Amino acid sequence: MEFDLIELIRQRTVQARDDVRLGIGDDAAVLAVPAGQELAVAIDTLVEGVHFPRGTDPADIGWKALAVNLSDLAAMGASPAWALLGLTLPQADRAFVEGFVDGFSRLAGAHRLALVGGDTTRGPLTVSVAVHGFVPPGKALTRAGARVGDAVLVTGTLGDAAAGLNVLQQLRRDEDDRDKLRDYLVERLTRPTPRLAAGVALREQAHACIDVSDGLLADLGHICAASGVGAEIDAALLPRSSALLGLYDDATALHFALGGGDDYELCFCVPPDRLSQVQADLSRLGCGVTRIGRIVAGTGVRVRGHDGGWMEPGMPGWEHFA
Amino acid sequence: MEFDLIELIRQRTVQARDDVRLGIGDDAAVLAVPAGQELAVAIDTLVEGVHFPRGTDPADIGWKALAVNLSDLAAMGASPAWALLGLTLPQADRAFVEGFVDGFSRLAGAHRLALVGGDTTRGPLTVSVAVHGFVPPGKALTRAGARVGDAVLVTGTLGDAAAGLNVLQQLRRDEDDRDKLRDYLVERLTRPTPRLAAGVALREQAHACIDVSDGLLADLGHICAASGVGAEIDAALLPRSSALLGLYDDATALHFALGGGDDYELCFCVPPDRLSQVQADLSRLGCGVTRIGRIVAGTGVRVRGHDGGWMEPGMPGWEHFA
Repeated sequence: MEFDLIELIRQRTVQARDDVRLGIGDDAAVLAVPAGQELAVAIDTLVEGVHFPRGTDPADIGWKALAVNLSDLAAMGASPAWALLGLTLPQADRAFVEGFVDGFSRLAGAHRLALVGGDTTRGPLTVSVAVHGFVPPGKALTRAGARVGDAVLVTGTLGDAAAGLNVLQQLRRDEDDRDKLRDYLVERLTRPTPRLAAGVALREQAHACIDVSDGLLADLGHICAASGVGAEIDAALLPRSSALLGLYDDATALHFALGGGDDYELCFCVPPDRLSQVQADLSRLGCGVTRIGRIVAGTGVRVRGHDGGWMEPGMPGWEHFA
Repeated sequence: MEFDLIELIRQRTVQARDDVRLGIGDDAAVLAVPAGQELAVAIDTLVEGVHFPRGTDPADIGWKALAVNLSDLAAMGASPAWALLGLTLPQADRAFVEGFVDGFSRLAGAHRLALVGGDTTRGPLTVSVAVHGFVPPGKALTRAGARVGDAVLVTGTLGDAAAGLNVLQQLRRDEDDRDKLRDYLVERLTRPTPRLAAGVALREQAHACIDVSDGLLADLGHICAASGVGAEIDAALLPRSSALLGLYDDATALHFALGGGDDYELCFCVPPDRLSQVQADLSRLGCGVTRIGRIVAGTGVRVRGHDGGWMEPGMPGWEHFA
């Protein structure tokens, strides 16, 4: 099956980039990293039945398989350039591949990313994507630079993707129960927007950055562990979409915002004296940004609840994520 | 499961390389391509039940998942530097990961390759590896440069891996029927040797190169298609190991040598006036090399049989591979 499908993928994902010396079709691609740039690379795998339900629109799978990887580049402040695709399919399914490539190439094209190599194999539906981006030497945003006193911020809104998953699970029971709010939340799950422009803008400003893939508490916890600090966040400050608040009670919405994964927003730390500049920069990019707390001495993430006290494991909004 | 296993993988695969600015543990790795080098990148996926049988030694899976990728770099004449690993496992199985990493890191260490990023997910056992190597600008060996009159050569011996698979299938019926010849063939299947030093040596000499992963006829056919030429090879010249010839009759051994995949030898084309130099260079590296035919005008690959006539589809040694 391999050659036809790879040729189909090649035709639909070709991007004219001077730095691609040799693209899909040989034993390896040959690429030129521009002078004065380092390479940021990441790999992520999506598995049917684990990361997306059986029957998911192939175009959504193609989009998301690339988006979750581009989100890793965004979190490093890198600009995307190239991708490799490892696509495992139960059978040579041209319709699936066409849909997949449609979603993949729509997002790739928006960022001038070239697919430079691929491998299609037979087996359970699994998608591995490796992405490559550029970042000036020494400028990559890591998880390790947060300092006591930094403000903690997030882009966009939190909890939508977890709510979107919940909507999909409910829909199985009542197929007609759809509306615009539900559609919005489901699309936040199936078509996440990697915050690439924001990541580049933060490169010179933020001390530390991560993308929210496992949930805010978990991912901010990674920043704390890597930086040797703690964090305090205010539940009342968490940015939540009107769709989320329109369809779920406050405790459930908070639960999704604190612990739900798959939002692919950026969570980052900036010194207080850069706060207004960062907010202005991101707003100019059309990217919402909200201060949700601060970095403190210590370890781990504490959440101040609506009553002003610290939330504890077992409280509403906290379960499963401690 | 993810963090413990990635930490285990990180500890056992760490390689001190100055060009790794940031390795496993952040959203992406940050890497520096040396000045004056281009990047060769490839991705390959192995699936349980498709590329290796259930119950395969995890160390063999780790070795082979890297070896098949390094073989792609060898075919380009690139020197390996970094790898990314996407590992999908049915459950968090520490013993499996330890074995896998043992095989992977043994081969990686032999080539000073650093694992710089990874992703472990839950699902059917699937391994995607992406590798990165260096090659001087314009010097990558492609499939596209073969010219009429070139000699066609291969490294090592052909057909061993296909015979090794046959041995494994026979062993299921008679577990005691093992000996050194069988062990040799099975090891050629499970622990292929990527011909990296040979690939680098061929960079200035060969017009075209490919690794034999799908079988000689198929892979030499790729060179012919990419180069717009044909090829004629002599069955009598095909290098076959004493193990292969000791365990199989001539027609079966020929069948494996022409059509069997997974040998990961290099097949390449050099102008006649460089033939003795190339043979001397590869011999000095301890890499066997054999001239098996020549590039001709036309299309496709023809094989001259032992009787001096052209072999036809349906003849012994040809079936299934036309």
